[in-house]
Amino acid sequence: MLDFEKNYLVTISFLGSRYHGSQIQKNAVTVQQIFQDALYETLATDGVEIKCCSRTDSGVHAKAFCISFSVPDSLSEFRFISRMNHLLPEDIRVIGLKEVPNGFHARYSSTGKRYEYYIWNHEIMSPFWEGRAFHERKKIDSQKVMNAAELFVGTHDFSSFCSIKSDVEDKIRTVKEITLQEKEHDLWVLSISADGFLYNMARIIAGALIQVNRGKLTVSDLEAYLNGRPRDNLLLTLPAHGLYLSEVFY
Amino acid sequence: MLDFEKNYLVTISFLGSRYHGSQIQKNAVTVQQIFQDALYETLATDGVEIKCCSRTDSGVHAKAFCISFSVPDSLSEFRFISRMNHLLPEDIRVIGLKEVPNGFHARYSSTGKRYEYYIWNHEIMSPFWEGRAFHERKKIDSQKVMNAAELFVGTHDFSSFCSIKSDVEDKIRTVKEITLQEKEHDLWVLSISADGFLYNMARIIAGALIQVNRGKLTVSDLEAYLNGRPRDNLLLTLPAHGLYLSEVFY
Repeated sequence: MLDFEKNYLVTISFLGSRYHGSQIQKNAVTVQQIFQDALYETLATDGVEIKCCSRTDSGVHAKAFCISFSVPDSLSEFRFISRMNHLLPEDIRVIGLKEVPNGFHARYSSTGKRYEYYIWNHEIMSPFWEGRAFHERKKIDSQKVMNAAELFVGTHDFSSFCSIKSDVEDKIRTVKEITLQEKEHDLWVLSISADGFLYNMARIIAGALIQVNRGKLTVSDLEAYLNGRPRDNLLLTLPAHGLYLSEVFY
Repeated sequence: MLDFEKNYLVTISFLGSRYHGSQIQKNAVTVQQIFQDALYETLATDGVEIKCCSRTDSGVHAKAFCISFSVPDSLSEFRFISRMNHLLPEDIRVIGLKEVPNGFHARYSSTGKRYEYYIWNHEIMSPFWEGRAFHERKKIDSQKVMNAAELFVGTHDFSSFCSIKSDVEDKIRTVKEITLQEKEHDLWVLSISADGFLYNMARIIAGALIQVNRGKLTVSDLEAYLNGRPRDNLLLTLPAHGLYLSEVFY
């Protein structure tokens, strides 16, 4: 029996295009499966349980996705990262490793996350952002969008801003910050920080703001959804390929 | 017989990863072939000769690659672009069409070009820049690199800065400007404007500057190469996947 003394938090970055999401599933290639295979080879054991910060959907990308696990002995940061990156495919990279206290859990110890939603805003899609940003033709009016985005900041019941597939009971979440910036010409990034995200919440908030920009929803509509109006077809879920998990807070 | 009255210049943008360069070859998928197939379908004729601004190597990308051709009748810009982009794969986009004077030629009328070389400068490669930037681990000292880059500006014999496969006689070119900027954290872009580029010239200049940064070549070495010292193994050709044709001047 292994005696686990050291707890580690590893941060990875991945391009999600080729993967059926982060969580292990049968008959599908997932980031967690590929990571776990490389980890077991690096540690020369498969007796290690890994804990992921969240489940991401098929096609979602991550700039910083966190995974924790315990091992009996100390790991060398440099050797661990080199070995893992040698084994992993090029669209998944280990970017950090640090020791964390016993009991630390990548998911339950997290105090929040930041997601970014990338939008290519031009009549013609960029070949460089295909599969990496949502294509929106309607010119973004950042003042109009930010005026609506302010509504989400604070503690709200996000029941109308999550997939019907969500199985959590408590749908109250606190959005700490929303920003919208033109990162480069025609490329906009919507950044949302919250203490937690319901299933599809980031993609539905992004969809609501796109609908406001298109004039299909008003600020009053968003207020109504936040106050119990059930989700309908006007509340779009934007595609997974524009979404990036960008920070996990501990 | 067709009576060609209208001359057009079309600008395309492409991610070169999947293509064996721009120029038509037998038994290889090239950007020119794919473009020409879409053009012939759009114009409903294959009796149109296309002229490309340059030949790009396998894996090289383009933000703005220009192609000229003549047709008997006026084209609607909006309809042409829509139709072409409907037919083209998502990694090639038509981004502009304009009428040009008779006799205008995408290659021979050009007064110069600007290439960009993308460098990911961190110990660990980014999964988002894999295949789109060169991975350099050694920290870039922008002052040291720019100090060396200044040498190339002006009119020089670039014989030592081109592939031995180059078949042009005149190897004198004028570099108008070189800049180096950190476009985003850890991503550097070297931009080179010249009246013309020899085969592999942009990639060898980028390689020379990387070698200066690594301490493998000095400014005096570069001066010697510009003054006739033959090319040797120290003068690296950086890989095609970091190179972007970014502007064609007319």
